[in-house]
Amino acid sequence: MGILLTIAYDGTGYCGWQVQKNGITICEMLEGAVSKLLEGQPFALLGASRTDSGVHALGQVAHIREMGVKTKIPPHKMPQILNSHLPDDIVVKDAALVPDDFHPIKDAKSKTYVYKIHNSKIPNPLTSRYTTLVGKKLNVDAMKDACKYFIGEHDFKTFSVPNSNPLIKTTVREVYNLQITQNNDHIEVWISGNGFLHNMVRIIAGTLVAVGHGQIEPNQIPQIIASKERDAAGKTMPPQGLTLVEVFYS
Amino acid sequence: MGILLTIAYDGTGYCGWQVQKNGITICEMLEGAVSKLLEGQPFALLGASRTDSGVHALGQVAHIREMGVKTKIPPHKMPQILNSHLPDDIVVKDAALVPDDFHPIKDAKSKTYVYKIHNSKIPNPLTSRYTTLVGKKLNVDAMKDACKYFIGEHDFKTFSVPNSNPLIKTTVREVYNLQITQNNDHIEVWISGNGFLHNMVRIIAGTLVAVGHGQIEPNQIPQIIASKERDAAGKTMPPQGLTLVEVFYS
Repeated sequence: MGILLTIAYDGTGYCGWQVQKNGITICEMLEGAVSKLLEGQPFALLGASRTDSGVHALGQVAHIREMGVKTKIPPHKMPQILNSHLPDDIVVKDAALVPDDFHPIKDAKSKTYVYKIHNSKIPNPLTSRYTTLVGKKLNVDAMKDACKYFIGEHDFKTFSVPNSNPLIKTTVREVYNLQITQNNDHIEVWISGNGFLHNMVRIIAGTLVAVGHGQIEPNQIPQIIASKERDAAGKTMPPQGLTLVEVFYS
Repeated sequence: MGILLTIAYDGTGYCGWQVQKNGITICEMLEGAVSKLLEGQPFALLGASRTDSGVHALGQVAHIREMGVKTKIPPHKMPQILNSHLPDDIVVKDAALVPDDFHPIKDAKSKTYVYKIHNSKIPNPLTSRYTTLVGKKLNVDAMKDACKYFIGEHDFKTFSVPNSNPLIKTTVREVYNLQITQNNDHIEVWISGNGFLHNMVRIIAGTLVAVGHGQIEPNQIPQIIASKERDAAGKTMPPQGLTLVEVFYS
């Protein structure tokens, strides 16, 4: 059996999820805590999503494969133990046992992200860690209108970092839902799909912002998708507005 | 004429509003920025509310009285200039001119605060800077029921730090409104009144939490107010859940 952890984090102070040479990452912090939990037994830890530097999570998922002796600690006791070895900005919310053949990336049925925008000329220091400030007024109706063109199975090459990962076999992904909510000057872009290319959500959000500013018409989206040219889409929005909400397994 | 500033801040990294010997305060940071704005001219700065260490604000008010030469910068240009001299967690939202006899504390007609509670066993790192975690389930209906007893003019001595300020002539205050909102595990206590004693909002919030946990019955509130004994009330809730929302002037 493997162990499946659900994790929330404020990504502000970290260089993203994936362990790297320069800077502290969330995966690294979690590995330190798991090492304490398993009392030094060897293990492998794999996250469902490689969130970028500054991106947040409410429902990141990490899979622990124990390589040696199995732990006797029941899963419901694990979050408290792990959290006692983690800083306040990383929280293990849940732990569960999963079969040996479970894979946190391949078995994920859908992922949901939210991109939060504060549409105001004046920054709000109580939301600025988790939103992106967009000063110029957005036409939210136009943004909502544009959403429908993204939904469905498409080649999303336009909305990815060019040549980012040579191991990726296809840039075809299915977007299950893309929706915009508005509460005064607070705008949220909710997106779920079977998987996302590197920066895909942030580039889609930037394209919707371009629609909201009248630089792109909603009905131009199909040809932008078809172009497969990064330049045809909007800007890559900054990381702090992005939160990984959920990774869903059947 | 004086200058009235409306300010928002994330109080996490500061030792409160009021200038003090140890630690950086928000007033101090603001004075530094105003000094740049007024190019070294002498001035006096007074805040409407002395928020404690760790308390946040969306609508703190500060009054600048120029002691020498008057600035020629129009008020609408001041926020941008001030913000360029302030860190991201302090934001001047607005500046306006006020008559010479204006007083930011005496002229305030009402103040509104919100106390935010995350009622969950599992912390949320994306809200923990601005909420207080209460693990044990709260009976929100009982809390709502208790609110009505606080509204009106009362001697709120029970809900203040004993002997905190010898200059305070009376502990009688009028609470205009006290309301509780709930959205799943997120509970907000909204309070407005003509003025608040030191820690009054945090002690009222702590008393409402005691009601929510069944330690105090709603109908016991009148006798707790009448007792004028600090021990009769609930705990002083931690600062990070508190936000000064607005100071209202007629």
